[in-house]
Amino acid sequence: MKITVLGAGSWGTALSMTLWKNGHSVYLWTHDEKEAKYLEEKRKCMNLPDVVIPKEIAILTSLEEAVKEGEVLVYAVPSIFTRSMGERTLPFVRKEQILVTVSKGIEESTLYTMTDILEEFFPENKIAVLSGPSHAEEVSRFIPTTIVCASKDEETARKIQSVFISDTFRVYTNKDVLGVEIGAALKNVIALAAGIADGLGYGDNTMAALITRGIAEIARLGQAMGCHLETFAGLSGIGDLIVTCASKHSRNRRAGILIGKGETYEEAMKEVGQVVEGVYAAKAAKKLGEKYHVDLPIVKEVNAVLFEGKPAKDAVSDLMLRDSRSESPAVGF
Amino acid sequence: MKITVLGAGSWGTALSMTLWKNGHSVYLWTHDEKEAKYLEEKRKCMNLPDVVIPKEIAILTSLEEAVKEGEVLVYAVPSIFTRSMGERTLPFVRKEQILVTVSKGIEESTLYTMTDILEEFFPENKIAVLSGPSHAEEVSRFIPTTIVCASKDEETARKIQSVFISDTFRVYTNKDVLGVEIGAALKNVIALAAGIADGLGYGDNTMAALITRGIAEIARLGQAMGCHLETFAGLSGIGDLIVTCASKHSRNRRAGILIGKGETYEEAMKEVGQVVEGVYAAKAAKKLGEKYHVDLPIVKEVNAVLFEGKPAKDAVSDLMLRDSRSESPAVGF
Repeated sequence: MKITVLGAGSWGTALSMTLWKNGHSVYLWTHDEKEAKYLEEKRKCMNLPDVVIPKEIAILTSLEEAVKEGEVLVYAVPSIFTRSMGERTLPFVRKEQILVTVSKGIEESTLYTMTDILEEFFPENKIAVLSGPSHAEEVSRFIPTTIVCASKDEETARKIQSVFISDTFRVYTNKDVLGVEIGAALKNVIALAAGIADGLGYGDNTMAALITRGIAEIARLGQAMGCHLETFAGLSGIGDLIVTCASKHSRNRRAGILIGKGETYEEAMKEVGQVVEGVYAAKAAKKLGEKYHVDLPIVKEVNAVLFEGKPAKDAVSDLMLRDSRSESPAVGF
Repeated sequence: MKITVLGAGSWGTALSMTLWKNGHSVYLWTHDEKEAKYLEEKRKCMNLPDVVIPKEIAILTSLEEAVKEGEVLVYAVPSIFTRSMGERTLPFVRKEQILVTVSKGIEESTLYTMTDILEEFFPENKIAVLSGPSHAEEVSRFIPTTIVCASKDEETARKIQSVFISDTFRVYTNKDVLGVEIGAALKNVIALAAGIADGLGYGDNTMAALITRGIAEIARLGQAMGCHLETFAGLSGIGDLIVTCASKHSRNRRAGILIGKGETYEEAMKEVGQVVEGVYAAKAAKKLGEKYHVDLPIVKEVNAVLFEGKPAKDAVSDLMLRDSRSESPAVGF
């Protein structure tokens, strides 16, 4: 098939490699002429130094041409640019093209997920989302990875599954699109918290506690929004949360560590040098908690540290000392 | 209170430090005269090089004396020695003493949990279990840690909670004793699998996939045994599984890495130099799966690698390539 990937960051590039390995014709688009030239000439992605991009992957800078080529369009831009990509591709997209978003975030002003935004622009198109524990650094080197493809439409989910699946990239379908997207966006906020604890000098025990409570917090919000609990127990929920909190590749965790060491979020984002989705998602998550009347203690503390000047040490200690006698109502006395 | 800790390994020592910090009188027993002398003179635990054991912690080698002193007895020996410790303490234990097990395993011949074994010897005593994401290396340095105290008896759970709880050691009660113990024992098997994948050169994506499926596998077995799903979503389930699979401190993971690199389990255990609980738990877990008619693919593959000579690479690849179209029945099409 002919597949267009919109966005040549590390994730867009890694997915292009996966699609190329599966024998598809891949069109990788970037808005940046300089980046395109670098990709074309060096066949390298700046954030994936070990990867050589095969010549068969076409590098394009014309959005019209890129959109025209693909039977499937993969939106692989940072979540804050998904709306502008929707706008910019609107004149060119045909209704028979399948749209796939691989961005992880919630739009703060509207509380829209990424598929919500695409649906607004393209109400007649089939839409899917890919999410799961899948660092680009490893996917691009074909290290075994599992991922979820969610769509409201069964045929679309199966089609995108068959496009991406390989021996090293296992794709599972899921019909709970909202659950997959909520897990994807909020895990970045929990990863910031895990990083902050790490930056403060806490250890793996503290991190495990934060992850365990983090997924419970995400699932609580998700259930209030009508999502399935099973999604949060799966690859796009706890699976992605683990890899984002525990892996050295995670930029959200890296940014959290810097914040835990005393940097502001602006300094941390500059030092990490790539988009830190959790910073944007933190605000949106807090608003979702308010909208659905769900208590989100980790999200609240991360917001306090990022935007209200609360010392990181106080935030983590407030989280750890929260009074609770039983582990959960279901197994409490 | 007066608390006796039976077993001066890293976990017994770390818990002794926690109890000492809380102001209790602590009696730390070891069967090994040489170890006792080292502990007494150097005030060091061999596996916790950074820790200085305060003089207030009494080091004992007389089991009779040790058992006599404690109002609470903490059984902190490797799981395979819990039965012999039960036998050896039987003549001295009084029925008003509360017994706490902190070992993680299932007895292979009987499929008993640690509390089952203690109950067999001490049917009139109150019994509790402590479990959760709590590496001794961090607990002994008072790094913030969360843990679960499970007992069938509410008063016992609350009493043990109050004995151990501090600002850096947060204890939550849970009445699902069996769920806590099944999670504790089986996570070590999954950690072996995660280590094996690591030793084969796979990455964080693969590990996250194994952990996600691992907790689903443990929860499936637990539910068939009558445990609560919530326990597996909690600290003693997913929380402990994460820390055991992802932390550098985990000896099960370290043993797995060596096995993934081609060592036998005997060689790996010798090199790790401490008990690798997952090796024992693997056999017991397989039997539990057979007994309760639950499919446990990761447990099965770990057994095949450890005891049947299956190449580690084939086992991980068989796990990753298992055919499954939807993520779980609840969110499938």
